[in-house]
Amino acid sequence: MIYFQCDYAEGADPDIIRRLCENNLEQSEGYGLDRHSIRAKELIKARIDKKDADVHFLVGGTETNRIAIQAALRPYQGVLSPDTGHIATHETGAIESTGHKVLTLKNTDGKISADQVKAYVDEHYKSPTSEHTVQPKMVYISFPTESGTIYSRKELEDLYRVTRECGIYLYIDGARLGYALASEKCDIKIEDIPNLCDMFYIGGTKCGALFGEALVIIKDELKKDFRYMIKQNGALLAKGRMLGLQFESLFEDDRYFKITSAAVEKALRIRNAFERKGIEMFGSSYTNQQFPILTKNQIERLQKDFVFEIWTDIDEERTAVRFCTSWATSEENLNRLLEVIEGL
Amino acid sequence: MIYFQCDYAEGADPDIIRRLCENNLEQSEGYGLDRHSIRAKELIKARIDKKDADVHFLVGGTETNRIAIQAALRPYQGVLSPDTGHIATHETGAIESTGHKVLTLKNTDGKISADQVKAYVDEHYKSPTSEHTVQPKMVYISFPTESGTIYSRKELEDLYRVTRECGIYLYIDGARLGYALASEKCDIKIEDIPNLCDMFYIGGTKCGALFGEALVIIKDELKKDFRYMIKQNGALLAKGRMLGLQFESLFEDDRYFKITSAAVEKALRIRNAFERKGIEMFGSSYTNQQFPILTKNQIERLQKDFVFEIWTDIDEERTAVRFCTSWATSEENLNRLLEVIEGL
Amino acid sequence: MIYFQCDYAEGADPDIIRRLCENNLEQSEGYGLDRHSIRAKELIKARIDKKDADVHFLVGGTETNRIAIQAALRPYQGVLSPDTGHIATHETGAIESTGHKVLTLKNTDGKISADQVKAYVDEHYKSPTSEHTVQPKMVYISFPTESGTIYSRKELEDLYRVTRECGIYLYIDGARLGYALASEKCDIKIEDIPNLCDMFYIGGTKCGALFGEALVIIKDELKKDFRYMIKQNGALLAKGRMLGLQFESLFEDDRYFKITSAAVEKALRIRNAFERKGIEMFGSSYTNQQFPILTKNQIERLQKDFVFEIWTDIDEERTAVRFCTSWATSEENLNRLLEVIEGL
Amino acid sequence: MIYFQCDYAEGADPDIIRRLCENNLEQSEGYGLDRHSIRAKELIKARIDKKDADVHFLVGGTETNRIAIQAALRPYQGVLSPDTGHIATHETGAIESTGHKVLTLKNTDGKISADQVKAYVDEHYKSPTSEHTVQPKMVYISFPTESGTIYSRKELEDLYRVTRECGIYLYIDGARLGYALASEKCDIKIEDIPNLCDMFYIGGTKCGALFGEALVIIKDELKKDFRYMIKQNGALLAKGRMLGLQFESLFEDDRYFKITSAAVEKALRIRNAFERKGIEMFGSSYTNQQFPILTKNQIERLQKDFVFEIWTDIDEERTAVRFCTSWATSEENLNRLLEVIEGL
Repeated sequence: MIYFQCDYAEGADPDIIRRLCENNLEQSEGYGLDRHSIRAKELIKARIDKKDADVHFLVGGTETNRIAIQAALRPYQGVLSPDTGHIATHETGAIESTGHKVLTLKNTDGKISADQVKAYVDEHYKSPTSEHTVQPKMVYISFPTESGTIYSRKELEDLYRVTRECGIYLYIDGARLGYALASEKCDIKIEDIPNLCDMFYIGGTKCGALFGEALVIIKDELKKDFRYMIKQNGALLAKGRMLGLQFESLFEDDRYFKITSAAVEKALRIRNAFERKGIEMFGSSYTNQQFPILTKNQIERLQKDFVFEIWTDIDEERTAVRFCTSWATSEENLNRLLEVIEGL
Repeated sequence: MIYFQCDYAEGADPDIIRRLCENNLEQSEGYGLDRHSIRAKELIKARIDKKDADVHFLVGGTETNRIAIQAALRPYQGVLSPDTGHIATHETGAIESTGHKVLTLKNTDGKISADQVKAYVDEHYKSPTSEHTVQPKMVYISFPTESGTIYSRKELEDLYRVTRECGIYLYIDGARLGYALASEKCDIKIEDIPNLCDMFYIGGTKCGALFGEALVIIKDELKKDFRYMIKQNGALLAKGRMLGLQFESLFEDDRYFKITSAAVEKALRIRNAFERKGIEMFGSSYTNQQFPILTKNQIERLQKDFVFEIWTDIDEERTAVRFCTSWATSEENLNRLLEVIEGL
Repeated sequence: MIYFQCDYAEGADPDIIRRLCENNLEQSEGYGLDRHSIRAKELIKARIDKKDADVHFLVGGTETNRIAIQAALRPYQGVLSPDTGHIATHETGAIESTGHKVLTLKNTDGKISADQVKAYVDEHYKSPTSEHTVQPKMVYISFPTESGTIYSRKELEDLYRVTRECGIYLYIDGARLGYALASEKCDIKIEDIPNLCDMFYIGGTKCGALFGEALVIIKDELKKDFRYMIKQNGALLAKGRMLGLQFESLFEDDRYFKITSAAVEKALRIRNAFERKGIEMFGSSYTNQQFPILTKNQIERLQKDFVFEIWTDIDEERTAVRFCTSWATSEENLNRLLEVIEGL
Repeated sequence: MIYFQCDYAEGADPDIIRRLCENNLEQSEGYGLDRHSIRAKELIKARIDKKDADVHFLVGGTETNRIAIQAALRPYQGVLSPDTGHIATHETGAIESTGHKVLTLKNTDGKISADQVKAYVDEHYKSPTSEHTVQPKMVYISFPTESGTIYSRKELEDLYRVTRECGIYLYIDGARLGYALASEKCDIKIEDIPNLCDMFYIGGTKCGALFGEALVIIKDELKKDFRYMIKQNGALLAKGRMLGLQFESLFEDDRYFKITSAAVEKALRIRNAFERKGIEMFGSSYTNQQFPILTKNQIERLQKDFVFEIWTDIDEERTAVRFCTSWATSEENLNRLLEVIEGL
């Protein structure tokens, strides 16, 4: 069986493995104070063109979301999220476990709009009983979204402008950030992102690392004492150099973008193959996740050779499924998939 | 400079690195459901001779403590700990951040006694205002303790008997478990531990892994739904196989014990070297941490060549410091240290 | 101006005030251990015909909900609620602040059905990633609902049966319980309620007391150590006798039901008056809250003499508003209102 | 039996009861927005000579402490307290339940010093691993202390100066504030307090009210959105006028001080009676709580007629006990006690 189920089925990009081997005996400071972590932070700050950002390396995405959001909010404040947002659906209530309500807005193709945010915040403050409800203080979005779609520059600019007008934060979950930036449909670059939000993270786990996410804090008031937050949440890796080494690899020579570009290119070949067969796609993903809407027969045929995820029922006949590519998707496996699609 | 500062300054035992390389392209299930994680759990259960235990792999020690303790307690319950316990002193209030008070008992050489526990619990329940105070429901100890000392079999048996009599849990933090079991002063084996507590963890990070702790749940009522707890805390590693691979390595051929035995043997050579010079040791550690009590001059001399930790002031003249050994301590570095000690 | 805005605009039923005066100099135990609290609990247990229930007096409704729900759930568990439920909308995220997510189900006339609950729980457990989502462990409903409607005996029986089948709890918020039981549309009695849920509260604040809610715990496993929970939440009233005295008053001679019956009778006269004018009602409330759907002109006319609450916009022309009656609604004020309605 | 057990055994000062009766039928806004609450706040602000303070009425002391402290701290911050502080000992871990550790300092006669605070904070920040420990951000003291003692003006000034130098808050628990201010040993006045701390509360429950504490926030940065915090904690009383009415009573004509002065005067007569018999006192309380150190025989003699609290064992022969006076202590009961003491 060939896996297209997710983008974390294999280990890590070979360059990462090579560095782990080469540096194994090196002695270094613990808890992220080692030279690799320090250098990786510098590489990231240079690449995003934001020298005064704070960068923190964390192990996983849910961990990053819960710490970042919890650190920014006072107890009675909540975070706005698309109803399909990862924090709203697939983190076992991690945000609520820190005391904060996730306030959901109806998504359109995975996204929410500046207008929705403004309307929610306005309604909160005009209510005579606003103190009886959770105060919205942050907007959470993912880029790309859970369904692989991408906010346009204009959409992000509008969102960020509105959040600033409302006095709330904009936080971007970039678990698959590289795949968004690698997409032909994306009209922003990584160096634009610091100007379009208050905090975001650059996902490593799903973009070629063994594990690891780089949280980037732009807004000054969110920076203070952040390492206390990490330690309290049990997320300060003792051998923090593991994170540093990986992000050194990913941000030297733009490896991060090479990995994700290759994966997106392969994903689009899958998309095209389905479309050539007249198969409709669920949502408009031009990133590394593809969601064909298949009949039961088509699913069964594909399941003979491939592992992929059942996403959501569309109607009585058809179901959207998900195929993911990653750094590890081989030409051989890809071609085998394209062949089978062709034969559906 | 040569590091004797801690037992997590280097990467991992070479066998672990080898396995990461060899398995890098293998496709596997995420979130700890892969074959390596499954096999590693079986290896551990066999080695501790407890087939019905539940084993969960987590990334770090603070994370493990906060999830294990939080999962076991109701909101108004607290955990008894030596006042020197890691949860009481060095986890940025991680336990309190989950709502639970750490109730401290005065340590003797890093340890607490069954009598202390019994007295505390009895006093709680005989108080007319017990409901106005935190209910003790768990005892936390570390084995070895923060200062490298070891509970005897008799001490552990007494502690466990008393906790059962009191209707409370006994949880053992085994961040350096291997070093305790490898000590000549230790009169218990790993297969005894499941009979001496309700829950414990086998530390990987400080005992040769890149990262990773194996939480072992013995008591049935503590097992239910534990993976929800892990996910909610942001601690369910996407590429969980990294943890499985490492514990496969550590628990095949008893590598875990070979690593820690070698490190303890080296630590005792350091201890002996100090003692031969008439230098007093702080506490009675016969594990991989050694705490000589040095004068300012002695410290300055050693700092010329070595990095080690300043532990605690003993009097106006002398300070206890800490030297750690690990899997990575080379004969060469060790001999260099022994030489310098000899010349003090 | 005459207030029909809410059912807590005045002090308390005169009998309560009389008792506070008469007992003012009596010396008693603190924290609810006084003879009035003890006797009031006995009166309630007798009246609901459930001798082995546990009764706890708390000050307010949000306080009661947050303690009751928090006490019943483990950290990763959540509570199902109608999307219009008080805990979902008007408690500033009190439930989330204790770490638990409120999982909303779409209401119909303020209510949710057994089928909705069953479908949600089934879907949770059949999901391959259930551990990545919040585990439903309790159903919260209010009786009457926020919009004054009442579950029928059949609906409650179905709900309770389904929750038991699913292994989850049913908790009833009875902030206005007396008004439901006093309604001609209600086919259950207070002594039925212990057989129809695991925990409920008998609201005092909105039913004639100065303050106070009587939480009744039916299910044994929810009873343990509950006073610790109350104290930890800062909700253990020092002069607990105040609560005892009030519930003695309400549950001697069925005063609680006399108060609420009179209020409901007055509310129905308001309903009838609106209906006689051909004015449509929002929802089907036959309790002490009435929600006529009024034009802007009608609202302005009524606002000249009365204070009432703007509830929700129905369409561009019309808005639902709320009129409440209570123990304190005088015939004089009621007649004045009926007159003005008549003249609309 | 005559109660000297605590200062909350009876109802409320008769003037409070009178006002509750007279205003019972008045219609008012809920949730503390009524005219009585507004006026009571003005009376307090005038009396403490701090027009720009924020005043919030809460029901009880533990509730007030947990909300005030939680509102001021970020997740990784803790509150310094004497080891005998109420939050450290008698609130069932209420502070920890909000995620914050109580950091204890050894008390002397119930008090802690500016030097202790400075030393603790300095040590925290000079530690190389400060991020691994809880950051101290507030000092909690009670005035009078749990054992009835009083900080001198100099001691308070030093404490407040040090907390400001350290960038942390000073919060005063004034559950029995009136009794401190009424003491002959007290060299500060209520109008001094706003200049000696960032936040404090004026206790009502133990000083003549049925219930109620007036939290006074001095420091601007602590004021924002405080009512959200109250509501989220389930502490926003629906009929908030109850609190307003009581504090109107207490702060019109300085009733608060008349009540507490009379009680302290009676307490000192008890103290003098014990001292005349050569009975030693535990600690130096000159407020409404008196702690004679008695033999078993003396305790038994007193227990024939009086209820009082067993405080703490002093040695094998003797035990400190507590006698409290309050607004409700009658001359008759007092004289009876003095007689029996005389006869010991």
